[in-house]
Amino acid sequence: MSKEFTMVDIVALAKSRGFVYPGSEIYGGLANTWDYGPLGVELKNNVKKAWWKKFVQESEHNVGLDAAILMNPEVWVASGHVGGFSDPLLDCKSCNSRFRADKLIEDFIKETDGEEVTVDGWGQEKMEQFIAEKGIKCPECGKSDFTNIRKFNLMFKTFQGVTEDSQAQIYLRPETAQGIFVNFKNVARTSRKKVPFGIAQIGKSFRNEITPGNFIFRTREFEQMELEFFCKPGEDMEWFYYWKDFCKNWLLNLGINEENMRLRDHEKEELSHYSNATTDIEYRFPFGWGELWGIADRTNFDLSRHSEHSGTLLNYQDPVTNEKYIPYCIEPSLGADRVTLAFLVDAYDEEALEDGTERTVLRFHPALAPLKAAVLPLTKKLEEPALKVYRELAKKFMVDYDAGGSIGKRYRRQDEAGTPFCITVDFDTLEDNTVTVRDRDTMEQVRMPIADLVKFIEEKMEF
Amino acid sequence: MSKEFTMVDIVALAKSRGFVYPGSEIYGGLANTWDYGPLGVELKNNVKKAWWKKFVQESEHNVGLDAAILMNPEVWVASGHVGGFSDPLLDCKSCNSRFRADKLIEDFIKETDGEEVTVDGWGQEKMEQFIAEKGIKCPECGKSDFTNIRKFNLMFKTFQGVTEDSQAQIYLRPETAQGIFVNFKNVARTSRKKVPFGIAQIGKSFRNEITPGNFIFRTREFEQMELEFFCKPGEDMEWFYYWKDFCKNWLLNLGINEENMRLRDHEKEELSHYSNATTDIEYRFPFGWGELWGIADRTNFDLSRHSEHSGTLLNYQDPVTNEKYIPYCIEPSLGADRVTLAFLVDAYDEEALEDGTERTVLRFHPALAPLKAAVLPLTKKLEEPALKVYRELAKKFMVDYDAGGSIGKRYRRQDEAGTPFCITVDFDTLEDNTVTVRDRDTMEQVRMPIADLVKFIEEKMEF
Repeated sequence: MSKEFTMVDIVALAKSRGFVYPGSEIYGGLANTWDYGPLGVELKNNVKKAWWKKFVQESEHNVGLDAAILMNPEVWVASGHVGGFSDPLLDCKSCNSRFRADKLIEDFIKETDGEEVTVDGWGQEKMEQFIAEKGIKCPECGKSDFTNIRKFNLMFKTFQGVTEDSQAQIYLRPETAQGIFVNFKNVARTSRKKVPFGIAQIGKSFRNEITPGNFIFRTREFEQMELEFFCKPGEDMEWFYYWKDFCKNWLLNLGINEENMRLRDHEKEELSHYSNATTDIEYRFPFGWGELWGIADRTNFDLSRHSEHSGTLLNYQDPVTNEKYIPYCIEPSLGADRVTLAFLVDAYDEEALEDGTERTVLRFHPALAPLKAAVLPLTKKLEEPALKVYRELAKKFMVDYDAGGSIGKRYRRQDEAGTPFCITVDFDTLEDNTVTVRDRDTMEQVRMPIADLVKFIEEKMEF
Repeated sequence: MSKEFTMVDIVALAKSRGFVYPGSEIYGGLANTWDYGPLGVELKNNVKKAWWKKFVQESEHNVGLDAAILMNPEVWVASGHVGGFSDPLLDCKSCNSRFRADKLIEDFIKETDGEEVTVDGWGQEKMEQFIAEKGIKCPECGKSDFTNIRKFNLMFKTFQGVTEDSQAQIYLRPETAQGIFVNFKNVARTSRKKVPFGIAQIGKSFRNEITPGNFIFRTREFEQMELEFFCKPGEDMEWFYYWKDFCKNWLLNLGINEENMRLRDHEKEELSHYSNATTDIEYRFPFGWGELWGIADRTNFDLSRHSEHSGTLLNYQDPVTNEKYIPYCIEPSLGADRVTLAFLVDAYDEEALEDGTERTVLRFHPALAPLKAAVLPLTKKLEEPALKVYRELAKKFMVDYDAGGSIGKRYRRQDEAGTPFCITVDFDTLEDNTVTVRDRDTMEQVRMPIADLVKFIEEKMEF
């Protein structure tokens, strides 16, 4: 990056160029909801397509699934979400503000030691003791007098059915993973897949977080891209490393700067009791390092729980050895919104130009860029041939037609949208059917036959 | 169709081939939720992509949007959903069963007169009178003694926030349209679009229907594909006809049989008070005609309501004449799940073959087919060259690799999945790099160079 920038710059550009708007804005918003605008929906869709391409379409191991958001509530009893999916909350006795105990501790350690730690593995008692011993202060009023910690379940509740006695309390799913586990047998049977194989899913989940924030990084409504990969017990660590590499390479191949990425292996005490290994892939956002991707070896925990709870044995029989077992599961779980934010932040640049001016440019990989090209008629008189080029390209991918203002102004506008190629139709075009193609990053221009444009751009979109 | 078939055939194939499974099945399900399996998620994604391609990518008028499901509750006050979005319910006094009054009347008329009518425009009193006069009987117990009609709001409620006093009751959106209306100014400003222009959105909506049913035709959780097209008052009817044709052609171009489709214009008394015109595109399902697409001229009702309620004037100034007005809006609203069902039903065929056997085949348009091709090695020895072909094709689109069983058996399996092309790799392939391509519908086979496959298939996918 040529220049330091902050989330304020990102949020401002996102709003002004139509990537992301505050949700329900004309009604004063709704706490931390966001709407994707015309460029944002293309960017996020491209991120989802790029994930599906590598994790399903090109994968010899995996198939897709799209399970309902509303599930039988027993699913969440079995998964442990009804009993255990909660935030540790406490109140300041002095000003009644409510906080997450773990965040309070993490922020305290960061401020005093400058260290970024996670206290995921700490029990309630340990957290209460630490807060008391260190005399951690209320961020609102400065006093150090808190209530004990209480658990607050993060699932959104709703009610289904129309007669009072039949109206059942159900939940909005807090993760897409369980939709995969409960369909393990259905998918194994109908897809004729043999272990090892994976089931991939993209979909919305909902968590009633006390501290959503940092733009689209943490929101109560969010989209997940999850793979549950089933393998033979004993082969799980091998697959764990395979998927860890696979995920890392997916990010790198789509242009994430390696220096803004790190892998953090969970310590033994931080691991869930059922997990053999967990690694977070973190990204350096302007607000600090944040988790993008959690890759976990979940052993046979989930399939075992659902087997016990539902009475349907979710096991697998090896077709060669006839051995029966409950498969182990590797879960790479990625947030679609936060990885979209990572791509946006990583692409963002403010660049000083030779002529003394400055430009804002989003250096997206062409596979992710909302618009692959913009077609610019040099003058009003060239609208007809320019529209012809635009229409030809629009059959293949998203393109813009931009006829307003000077060419320089249009270049800046497309730079801010992250459009990799600006195609100018000029008077020579009428003679020889060639156009000028200007590269977003190098700003160099080449002359090219119109007939070559689709192939040229499609090759740049490969990853 | 060569043979009559019922929804039972469709549901059975959908389950056995992995198109659609009952939701939460191992827990006994959850009333009328459905999960899309490996083939189903591809089919539905292709339907959504085909819609986006024509309504956004290739459209010079429209841009996309992806607004949050959770919105400020004031949105639903302004839209009229809090006050008026309800079903007219009544109970049988004898057996306490609950029914929708409008459905009771429609079913009665269908049974007695054989006519399919809709009573959308009827008031509560008119319905009560009709039921009493005709002595309509309870479908459960046969008595004719009902309570008065009461309104039951169809919105799912939930609660957001973690402190008791801050926990706000909000709704799961019952339609995607309002996310577009409240963003009208944001999109107009940031996309630099001039009226007439449209905003398109795909996303989940939720309605607490008393009578979900007919497989994925009517579900409480469902996905919509909506366009709100804004135009100058007075030009609305012209655009209404434009989009009506556009929607109809989209279905026909993707292979829907015209004889299974009809357009039904709403009668004056059936229209909402704010609507100038409404047409439903209906499809002939095995259970009868059902609405796929509602195309409505909503005048300036929605933007006016939100202007009044929010205090933000959602108007438009013509950049040439400087005239200010609140745009009129044409809304083509399509259910993604039910149009996916229509494509599935329309594609379904059971065909008697010359050799006396029968095959089930899904004759999807190649753009919609979950798998564009299957690569079949003639024998085990040809796995390596076959996998090479598979991997090359998988970079471009979804393909299957199918090495199990006789070629005839594999053809049948791919017919049932709706795969348009089966590509057989045989011993000649090793000599001349050609393969056999078998057409799903004609069952004819042609020999083709491997190098031509991508282009051949991609051309077939055009629509």
